[in-house]
Amino acid sequence: MRVFIAGMDGYLGWSLAVHLTAQGHDVAGADLFLRRRWVEEMGGESAIPIATMDERVAALQECFGRSCHFATGDLRDYRFVERSLRDFQPDAIVHVGECPSAPYSMIDVHHAVFVQTNNLVSTFNLLFAMKSVRSDAHLVKLGTMGEYGTPNIDIPEGFFDIEYRGRRDRLPFPRQAGSWYHWSKVHGSNNIMFASKLWGLRATDIMQGVVFGTQLNEMTTDGRLRTRLDFDQAFGTAINRFCCQAVIRHPLTPYGKGHQQRGFLPLRDSMQCLELALVNPPAPGEYRVLNQFAEVYDVTELALKVQAAAQQLGIEVAVRNLENPRRELEDHYYQPDHQALFDLGYKPTREVDVEIRTMLEDLLPHRDRIEGRRRVLIPDVRWDGERKLSAFI
Amino acid sequence: MRVFIAGMDGYLGWSLAVHLTAQGHDVAGADLFLRRRWVEEMGGESAIPIATMDERVAALQECFGRSCHFATGDLRDYRFVERSLRDFQPDAIVHVGECPSAPYSMIDVHHAVFVQTNNLVSTFNLLFAMKSVRSDAHLVKLGTMGEYGTPNIDIPEGFFDIEYRGRRDRLPFPRQAGSWYHWSKVHGSNNIMFASKLWGLRATDIMQGVVFGTQLNEMTTDGRLRTRLDFDQAFGTAINRFCCQAVIRHPLTPYGKGHQQRGFLPLRDSMQCLELALVNPPAPGEYRVLNQFAEVYDVTELALKVQAAAQQLGIEVAVRNLENPRRELEDHYYQPDHQALFDLGYKPTREVDVEIRTMLEDLLPHRDRIEGRRRVLIPDVRWDGERKLSAFI
Repeated sequence: MRVFIAGMDGYLGWSLAVHLTAQGHDVAGADLFLRRRWVEEMGGESAIPIATMDERVAALQECFGRSCHFATGDLRDYRFVERSLRDFQPDAIVHVGECPSAPYSMIDVHHAVFVQTNNLVSTFNLLFAMKSVRSDAHLVKLGTMGEYGTPNIDIPEGFFDIEYRGRRDRLPFPRQAGSWYHWSKVHGSNNIMFASKLWGLRATDIMQGVVFGTQLNEMTTDGRLRTRLDFDQAFGTAINRFCCQAVIRHPLTPYGKGHQQRGFLPLRDSMQCLELALVNPPAPGEYRVLNQFAEVYDVTELALKVQAAAQQLGIEVAVRNLENPRRELEDHYYQPDHQALFDLGYKPTREVDVEIRTMLEDLLPHRDRIEGRRRVLIPDVRWDGERKLSAFI
Repeated sequence: MRVFIAGMDGYLGWSLAVHLTAQGHDVAGADLFLRRRWVEEMGGESAIPIATMDERVAALQECFGRSCHFATGDLRDYRFVERSLRDFQPDAIVHVGECPSAPYSMIDVHHAVFVQTNNLVSTFNLLFAMKSVRSDAHLVKLGTMGEYGTPNIDIPEGFFDIEYRGRRDRLPFPRQAGSWYHWSKVHGSNNIMFASKLWGLRATDIMQGVVFGTQLNEMTTDGRLRTRLDFDQAFGTAINRFCCQAVIRHPLTPYGKGHQQRGFLPLRDSMQCLELALVNPPAPGEYRVLNQFAEVYDVTELALKVQAAAQQLGIEVAVRNLENPRRELEDHYYQPDHQALFDLGYKPTREVDVEIRTMLEDLLPHRDRIEGRRRVLIPDVRWDGERKLSAFI
């Protein structure tokens, strides 16, 4: 299968390039390396050293005997996107080329506008280019479980059947996102839903949970195959950040009461699920929504798991809650469906505790990199627009 | 009351400037005159001659003895928007500065991207500027009934209480827009809903029906006070276009079966409703959605009303259906609520037949302008991406 990865240099994008190449698929990709710049802007860097794209592509060739065509370019440039798809003629396009950070989008008006327009325009260009040069291909777009917010009812996968004033209909499930970034994903989902209906495109919209993990099995043979792992407030997600905190004995920092519940899945499961979506495309015109996560956890529960795993490695760390820089419910009902991927054959690969232990072992050799940037572990981007470090509570 | 009109040169923007000034409100506004350029791009022009903004502002002063501050500028430029609000310190901001055309947004990828980013960024800038320099002001944003699409259940005003799997919640009503333009309005609504919750802003989001009409009472004294009236496929809406067709004896052209149902209201009612929303602002933090229309009509029914009114003026015109360039249901359930504005005091001013007769009388002196551009009366922008004139069916 020929897969084009839009945003191939990112945490998920590069992991997917490695995973699909190792599975024998033909991969091509594009990236503008903005993720490296955004993380730098936040004062961070990848805890795990990563190679340049030239080195990465060379490693794919050497390790798996498969060439991968990569082009540096801007997904907001329609001609670049159309040319990329025309040249490669992919069976599927995976869009992981969006800016994926809620805090980054909340910095100020310029970041809000950047995140929403960047994410919106890149998705538009991929949709129109598909229609123009490869209309039978399958678009797999990374959305987020955060699109749904935390309603007081169960969360279905994209659509629900309801009765209202005595009549029935099947409708898109209402979205209640919690940041400009999360809303950018909603806007993208809406545009993709419409394009599928309008032009008969095949699309899978992945409402993904929070991904954690430092590696895939396929990455262990060569350092150039490793993917990035961020720990700054904007690009480091919960478990990843907790693990980086643990290896330098920095307190683990749930926000607020710490009883926010979210769906989580290891990086290796994310790759398994994406491949399942790719090899099982929807019909032409079908807009399929998959809620992609292994299990729901409460954030404090996860901090305690990281604490326990660290202790097994002889590292004592505290769990200390921080003032919540976000505006979100800290105690809420949460019952999202996630059956569709299991029906496609998804099998969670490892217990979360085992994965966390692997992460800590992976991160220990790089503790100096994290130590050198420990100030980025405490958030200061607040949802009310202020810029102020959160205090311990 | 001090009202800032973002997009003061448009069909609604200028009407509102005249109406509010005549009512004794203090008005300021901004515009980049893009509407004039878009209509030109479509090969059209206003059927009713309109003055320059300098002439318009001078007429406000002469007719009503009130000065109006106008600035030429781009709502996508944050500094311009912030400076405008800081200087004028409005009690309310009415955002009618978006590109309002479904067909225009469907021309190609560049128009789709333009319409969505233009509409999204201007709204963002107004929200952030309000928060920054005038957080107690009231944002009135023009959305469209088209955000809802045509679901098979009743359409409430923005939110609905539902039961799902035995639990209850009050949620945003799902949107199912039918063009990139309509989706841009949904994206904007979502962003405003979030900003209100996040920052405690007051906002009214108007889901407006299709507006028709050539004048307000306040415009009759001076030609410079007249607002534009478009009849091209992109910026001419149903009744306005039918009336322009009638005065040159061009067949009236419902699309497809012509049984699409929509909410409609005369321009004078639109102004009445906007003023009601302005003088009755919501509480801080409240995001209020108003469905704004007088009555629901089927498009063919309206064509027949225009035909009958024309006949009374001695003009015989046929009603002939055209191939539908859009992808939309042509026979559907449609039952939208619109009680909130009536509760605020809205009283429809005139029968639709009377308003149509006034429109025809207003347009007759300008039949040569319409005749000279009759080719823009037949649509060629198709929802499937092709550019092809619709044939009569």
